[in-house]
Amino acid sequence: MSKQTIYYTLTDEAPALATASLLPIFGAFAKEADIELKLTDISLAGRILSAFSDLLPSDQKVEDGLKFLGELTADPKANIVKLPNISASLPQLNAAIKELQSQGFDIPAYPENAQSDAEKDAQARYSKILGSAVNPVLRQGNSDRRAPAAVKGFARKNPHSMGKWSKTSTSHADYMRDGDFFSSEQSVTMDSDQTVSIEFVGKDGSVEVKKSLPLIAGEVLDSMNISCKKLRAFFEESLQDAKENNIMWSLHVKATMMKVSHPIVFGHAVTVFYKDVFEKYGELFNDIGVNPNNGLGSVYDKIKTLPEAQQAEIKQAIEACYETRPELAMVDSDKGITNLHVPSDVIVDASMPAMIRNSGKMWGRDGKAHDAKAVMPESTYARIYQETINFCKTNGAFDPVTMGTVPNVGLMAQKAEEYGSHDKTFEMQADGVMRIVDAKGNVLMQHNVEKGDIWRACQTKDAPIRDWVKLGVTRARQSDTPAVFWLDEERAHDNELRKKVETYLKEHDINGLDIRIMSYNEAIRFSMERIIRGQDTISVTGNVLRDYLTDLFPIMELGTSAKMLSIVPMLQGGGMYETGAGGSAPKHVQQLMEENHLRWDSLGEFLAVAVSFEELGIKHNNEKAIVLAKCLDKATGKLLDTNKSPSRKTGEIDNRGSHFYLAMYWAQELAAQTENAELATQFASLAKELTAKEAAIIAELTEVQGKPAGLSGYYNINLEEVTKIMRPSNTFNQVLASL
Amino acid sequence: MSKQTIYYTLTDEAPALATASLLPIFGAFAKEADIELKLTDISLAGRILSAFSDLLPSDQKVEDGLKFLGELTADPKANIVKLPNISASLPQLNAAIKELQSQGFDIPAYPENAQSDAEKDAQARYSKILGSAVNPVLRQGNSDRRAPAAVKGFARKNPHSMGKWSKTSTSHADYMRDGDFFSSEQSVTMDSDQTVSIEFVGKDGSVEVKKSLPLIAGEVLDSMNISCKKLRAFFEESLQDAKENNIMWSLHVKATMMKVSHPIVFGHAVTVFYKDVFEKYGELFNDIGVNPNNGLGSVYDKIKTLPEAQQAEIKQAIEACYETRPELAMVDSDKGITNLHVPSDVIVDASMPAMIRNSGKMWGRDGKAHDAKAVMPESTYARIYQETINFCKTNGAFDPVTMGTVPNVGLMAQKAEEYGSHDKTFEMQADGVMRIVDAKGNVLMQHNVEKGDIWRACQTKDAPIRDWVKLGVTRARQSDTPAVFWLDEERAHDNELRKKVETYLKEHDINGLDIRIMSYNEAIRFSMERIIRGQDTISVTGNVLRDYLTDLFPIMELGTSAKMLSIVPMLQGGGMYETGAGGSAPKHVQQLMEENHLRWDSLGEFLAVAVSFEELGIKHNNEKAIVLAKCLDKATGKLLDTNKSPSRKTGEIDNRGSHFYLAMYWAQELAAQTENAELATQFASLAKELTAKEAAIIAELTEVQGKPAGLSGYYNINLEEVTKIMRPSNTFNQVLASL
Repeated sequence: MSKQTIYYTLTDEAPALATASLLPIFGAFAKEADIELKLTDISLAGRILSAFSDLLPSDQKVEDGLKFLGELTADPKANIVKLPNISASLPQLNAAIKELQSQGFDIPAYPENAQSDAEKDAQARYSKILGSAVNPVLRQGNSDRRAPAAVKGFARKNPHSMGKWSKTSTSHADYMRDGDFFSSEQSVTMDSDQTVSIEFVGKDGSVEVKKSLPLIAGEVLDSMNISCKKLRAFFEESLQDAKENNIMWSLHVKATMMKVSHPIVFGHAVTVFYKDVFEKYGELFNDIGVNPNNGLGSVYDKIKTLPEAQQAEIKQAIEACYETRPELAMVDSDKGITNLHVPSDVIVDASMPAMIRNSGKMWGRDGKAHDAKAVMPESTYARIYQETINFCKTNGAFDPVTMGTVPNVGLMAQKAEEYGSHDKTFEMQADGVMRIVDAKGNVLMQHNVEKGDIWRACQTKDAPIRDWVKLGVTRARQSDTPAVFWLDEERAHDNELRKKVETYLKEHDINGLDIRIMSYNEAIRFSMERIIRGQDTISVTGNVLRDYLTDLFPIMELGTSAKMLSIVPMLQGGGMYETGAGGSAPKHVQQLMEENHLRWDSLGEFLAVAVSFEELGIKHNNEKAIVLAKCLDKATGKLLDTNKSPSRKTGEIDNRGSHFYLAMYWAQELAAQTENAELATQFASLAKELTAKEAAIIAELTEVQGKPAGLSGYYNINLEEVTKIMRPSNTFNQVLASL
Repeated sequence: MSKQTIYYTLTDEAPALATASLLPIFGAFAKEADIELKLTDISLAGRILSAFSDLLPSDQKVEDGLKFLGELTADPKANIVKLPNISASLPQLNAAIKELQSQGFDIPAYPENAQSDAEKDAQARYSKILGSAVNPVLRQGNSDRRAPAAVKGFARKNPHSMGKWSKTSTSHADYMRDGDFFSSEQSVTMDSDQTVSIEFVGKDGSVEVKKSLPLIAGEVLDSMNISCKKLRAFFEESLQDAKENNIMWSLHVKATMMKVSHPIVFGHAVTVFYKDVFEKYGELFNDIGVNPNNGLGSVYDKIKTLPEAQQAEIKQAIEACYETRPELAMVDSDKGITNLHVPSDVIVDASMPAMIRNSGKMWGRDGKAHDAKAVMPESTYARIYQETINFCKTNGAFDPVTMGTVPNVGLMAQKAEEYGSHDKTFEMQADGVMRIVDAKGNVLMQHNVEKGDIWRACQTKDAPIRDWVKLGVTRARQSDTPAVFWLDEERAHDNELRKKVETYLKEHDINGLDIRIMSYNEAIRFSMERIIRGQDTISVTGNVLRDYLTDLFPIMELGTSAKMLSIVPMLQGGGMYETGAGGSAPKHVQQLMEENHLRWDSLGEFLAVAVSFEELGIKHNNEKAIVLAKCLDKATGKLLDTNKSPSRKTGEIDNRGSHFYLAMYWAQELAAQTENAELATQFASLAKELTAKEAAIIAELTEVQGKPAGLSGYYNINLEEVTKIMRPSNTFNQVLASL
């Protein structure tokens, strides 16, 4: 690894296209401070090709960029700028394979049902590419997320819309009071390295080892259980309560992240809501492969094989349920898609902030917004949403103009589980006892379980906790802001963590800092009371609250969580700088192909690269890098203030135009600054040239728009071809080359 | 003053009647421990007669019992049992005068419009008797209120009804966010004894001294203002919000205690609600003497002088208002009496707990309970009700069976004003500045005011604050319970108090105690989170919160605040033991007169006398007194458990019967105890006799019921006559006399 290198990732779709325009600008500026930006391919196509590289001819072989970066995370000087990439679903993977095959790469298809050795080999290779495969490799540290000053300032001056809150709103969070993970959680801290055994003991005394789990000293191990009976009773009560009180019923789960337990929870909601249907057609559904955990959509899908008349009968039975049940919140009222259609449509961390921003309302069958009972069966985190709803009823909607900010320091390193733990989550097949037994045969924890219960264990290592405490203290010091550790007295897991936090806090100078430990309700209330008074509060949380709060607060503060600065200070000392979410990237690519207009906003890249420069400057004692960073931040602020972000409309400034303005403002700032005279001289001419040629460059960037841009690959882009498309201004290219 | 005397007050109505039966029992038992119980007359009639004693013939002269007890409060060994008395309204005063005159007392009528010197003299004498005239004289200490163990235990075993709370309730508290006392409060602590000047400075620079105020060093002085414009705008907005959201509108003020400011606030509510009527008939109303501060009742009352047609027109105009306004909460839906009829009908500290106990509902025009917007313009204390409402929506109604208790230590001594301060409350007659100027001419505080604003100052002396801190610590120690000082960071007054609390806490050993200082919202939330988990928390509060919380929590815990033990540990070392509220006493007297059944429950007296004995025992080192106290508490518990409290139904056990059972259980406990053998011997025979003759005595007490009891005086009772009525069991009287 070169001494002063920033690794910039080549990912997929819009961010990858934008990179073709933006990286040359970053590179040109960085060169003046003796910094090199290297592009590393972690795109879906790149990952596929590298996985089969040994089977491809030498001119088609591709390096494994992800493996390279993964190893780099152990380097204390690692500096990685990570753009959003595709977490491939199966359809996406198949599309990418097809594209690569059509481009002449001789790679196998994905074998849905692998039989031969070759197929099994292919399946194994593809399984490492599917889903969220990049973050676990690169996120070798805890999480530091905040709203950058420029973004916060822009939001204050240009507040997004916020739905008003009525004091008479009937919306609320509904959750289990008993029988859930929260109320059954047990937790222990291991005193030595050892392998524990997760066991099921049947009513007949038989012991089944479900899993052997190697643990290290200091590791926190939790176990907990959701009672199936109590869960179903809760759903029934909640539905009846909603019906009686004439309020819309809306289920919010996290079936993506909790991919074992939450689909089961979701399935119970479906079978309780449509109880009459499932009672009548249960066996039939079983025969034709209906899986309620996949939602009502699965019913509609699978009954297509049945005779028309029977289909009609079932559909009628489904419709009849709506007579006795409360109205369901809709995902797409035009298409009649409800909250219970697909488990992954309504994801709590995104859906609850949207509901809160929308006056506490969800969308109804009539296409209008209505008060809703937001049902989140597990009470662990659901309570913070009820607290927030009560707060909004009392104090009105948050005001982006005046509100403070709640940055987050999240315990994420080494897969801090809290949520997740799929390999240790089990749906009980019989009544009995689930227990965890240590190496000496002592029972560490146990739960009485019944058939259908959802039992899970999860583990959190000590080193990341220690690092997390340090990061919390560092952030409190750097931003001179109170920091609150969100640790709930009523959670066994949190009480184990609390002991560690109290111990590790002693390792730091916290003199003059305001560091507190609070329960979730106290912490969110404290943060909200401060936020409406314009005050900031750092939330130092576990992994789930990291996920939830870095949506909740940013969506209130900034209207989106995509504009957050997301840093992973790695355990080994390096840093990864993540840029915003890429949710809408496919639409962006489509617009580029059809009209040669890329609406992708590279704001996240601007912000991440500034921090990347800054940290590199500090580590290498490179003063110029620090000045580059400061001026880049100022340029970003100016770009926001002057509204030079990409327009959605073809013919107006797009991604490329915004890059030009960033370069111009950045050069102007560098030329004008007095901190580093050499750098000012270096950029004087560039600033002058870009300023003088603004009109010409913008004209060149605009005139290419309106006709299709020829892209020969969607997943496996041709960088040369894309560079031609993304850098169409000769004037701009020449001026930049003159640096 | 005798060395071992308890002063027992003769008051009014039912408590006075009950005294004729109960005091002989207390006296007989006390005698055995060398304690004398002396009866001191502080009844309304007694106070009138003593005020005119110099004008009455010698055989009609009456001692001034209140003055005597007032002086006694300075005695470190003062021991006073204070029963509920009449805080006379003008109609009550007039009725008492009339009764006394008819009994041959030559006292003057109350001169509504005093002209002659004699009339002026009479008015001056009566003014000291009107209203709340007793408590300010006797309450020479702070307040210690708690639910006695026997009462709390009884409530847990026999829970009162509690309305369920719906998660979809739309009820809420509504209050000003700006322009009220809370947001304008200023506060200073005096550094020396001096007289300050409250001044109004007009727009023309003229200075009017409204009041000279002598203050002592360490005294806290506050000033604050309600903006009339903002108050009226708030009412209008609140009404429109209620109308739009179809929720009942309910005004909750404290016109009795805040007798200057709150009637004005109430008046604005009336003139805003009936805006169209007051705009049209304002001048006419002025002419005929309508005072909106007296409520809509005043309109109906005064227009009676107008021609029928005009009356009808006005009534129609009033009815028309209901078309454009939200539904009003009713005080008496049968009679069509709304919340705006009379200012003293709905008193926040009683009405809000009732609403919260009743599922957050108030009574509507249809005689049914509905969700309501509870309007309390001043936000200072209103916020705790919103917090409570949110809490109930989230957690459901409180459960008397499992809930903990919240005793109170209240800052009350030396008229700690906070509320009150009638002589320093002004309705502004013009725009200008209200300021307080110290002896050197420095402006301590000032407010810009507008015509119609309500400005007030209020004072709190240092010695009571110091004593209050001590009492808080003592109670925390004695009951081993966390104590929370409710001091709001956002209130200027509370910040002055906070400094003193922090200083005075250092005077005490608080090692091992859990003593906290919290804002109101934090404190009530903390207390509620604990209470639903069965945990107790002492609230250490100012004078208003004392008043509010000793209704709110007791009504949730016990169903009534009348069963609370209320102690005033006096600044000079003595103690006053107050017994429960006498709100429904007039109805009780009526039932006695008609059916010779007194349903008054002397539970408060049982509890107060037990503490009175206990404290006397400690002070005089009288062991027997302490044992008497313990056994009395046990007897009270047994009486509750065996359901020997008075029935409301004639023919069943009434007040007298419950006194018998108290005596029997008390004697049994004394005979059975082993702590003091002498006392056991002394009471052995009594216990035996009472137990043996239970049936006979109850029969004698029951057979007198069902026919009218002849009472020759309502206000000025004839104690001999009343004693005959109240002690009708010869058997019981003889057994008691044999002691």
